[in-house]
Amino acid sequence: MRVVVPLSVTRPKSRLAPVLSPAERRAFALVSCRDVVDAARDAGLDPELLVTEHVDVDAPATVDDRPLTEAVNAVLADAEPDADRPVCVLMADLALATPTAVSRLVDAAGDVVIAPGRGGGTNALVVRHPEFRVDYHGASFRDHRAAAESLDASATVVDSMRLSTDVDEPADLVEVLLHGPGEAPGWLRERGVSLSVGDGRVGVTRPGTDG
Amino acid sequence: MRVVVPLSVTRPKSRLAPVLSPAERRAFALVSCRDVVDAARDAGLDPELLVTEHVDVDAPATVDDRPLTEAVNAVLADAEPDADRPVCVLMADLALATPTAVSRLVDAAGDVVIAPGRGGGTNALVVRHPEFRVDYHGASFRDHRAAAESLDASATVVDSMRLSTDVDEPADLVEVLLHGPGEAPGWLRERGVSLSVGDGRVGVTRPGTDG
Repeated sequence: MRVVVPLSVTRPKSRLAPVLSPAERRAFALVSCRDVVDAARDAGLDPELLVTEHVDVDAPATVDDRPLTEAVNAVLADAEPDADRPVCVLMADLALATPTAVSRLVDAAGDVVIAPGRGGGTNALVVRHPEFRVDYHGASFRDHRAAAESLDASATVVDSMRLSTDVDEPADLVEVLLHGPGEAPGWLRERGVSLSVGDGRVGVTRPGTDG
Repeated sequence: MRVVVPLSVTRPKSRLAPVLSPAERRAFALVSCRDVVDAARDAGLDPELLVTEHVDVDAPATVDDRPLTEAVNAVLADAEPDADRPVCVLMADLALATPTAVSRLVDAAGDVVIAPGRGGGTNALVVRHPEFRVDYHGASFRDHRAAAESLDASATVVDSMRLSTDVDEPADLVEVLLHGPGEAPGWLRERGVSLSVGDGRVGVTRPGTDG
């Protein structure tokens, strides 16, 4: 199965600004991307990057500086996916992804398999229909289900906390620190980012920042 | 398997105050609890409530007005769970729970099976060890893994977005509206709570409130 990992490094992870500097946010995006690539490889897959510019991640890469939706749709139009030649699109910020979680995704049956993200997003897809196209704006989970329905394509939803956790906001770093299987948790700890335990949900803290 | 659903109605869901009035928060807590009970029943289980006072939910109930940790530990001390007589503890606010998700939880092997919640919590447990006790304060997911380890008990983690989503904050209502399988999404819509779609993660809005 073709596995495409889109990564934009134009202004990566701007909502992590309370905790990480611009250079750190870019570095963290790369660390997370490497973890996603490793998880896919350990699931027996051969991931390739779809990047806005060349990055230091050891995987085959296509450079496409268009916005995410357009770049992914160009891949789908070119690939013409079907049951025999599915295409998986796995976001580069899924720092909780494990080989098991990726295997559950790619092994799920369906013309379109969707792993929803928090807040209505789409964190991972498997496409087995040549006409399905993505639209990552807004409530894309809902829109992708509707798009599958309009094609009479079967849609399957994968119920995974790991794949639902894209790392956009400081609160998401809690999940990386607690559940990340790769290099990202250690990278954060080395920079002083740690859990802040009080009442209610756990947060993160970093000396000298707002986080 | 014994399935205990703890529900506190002392000051339920106070962090939903931007969107729901106190009376509505209590009513929503009961609607969510009924959805959890239905999901467990449809998974072939026989759930019972552990409540701080009598509530209008159609299920056998034990009233215990102590804090959650103490009340659950009293159940575990009394039950002396083991592999033949496991005890499942399923939070009443898991409004995304489906029979499939509950089945994945109760069917998972392990002396202690944990479904982590967002922000370091523990949303559901299966206990098959007589000495395991809970502590829901702070980063309970981490603490429960450590508690299992200290007993030489095997610990299994269930990777489920549905079970990871306890509904505490307005952002969590997005997940209920998009993914809730029971009555809770319709209950919210009837009160004018709807998705707010802009850039980034989807939020919720309700005319006349801060939400």
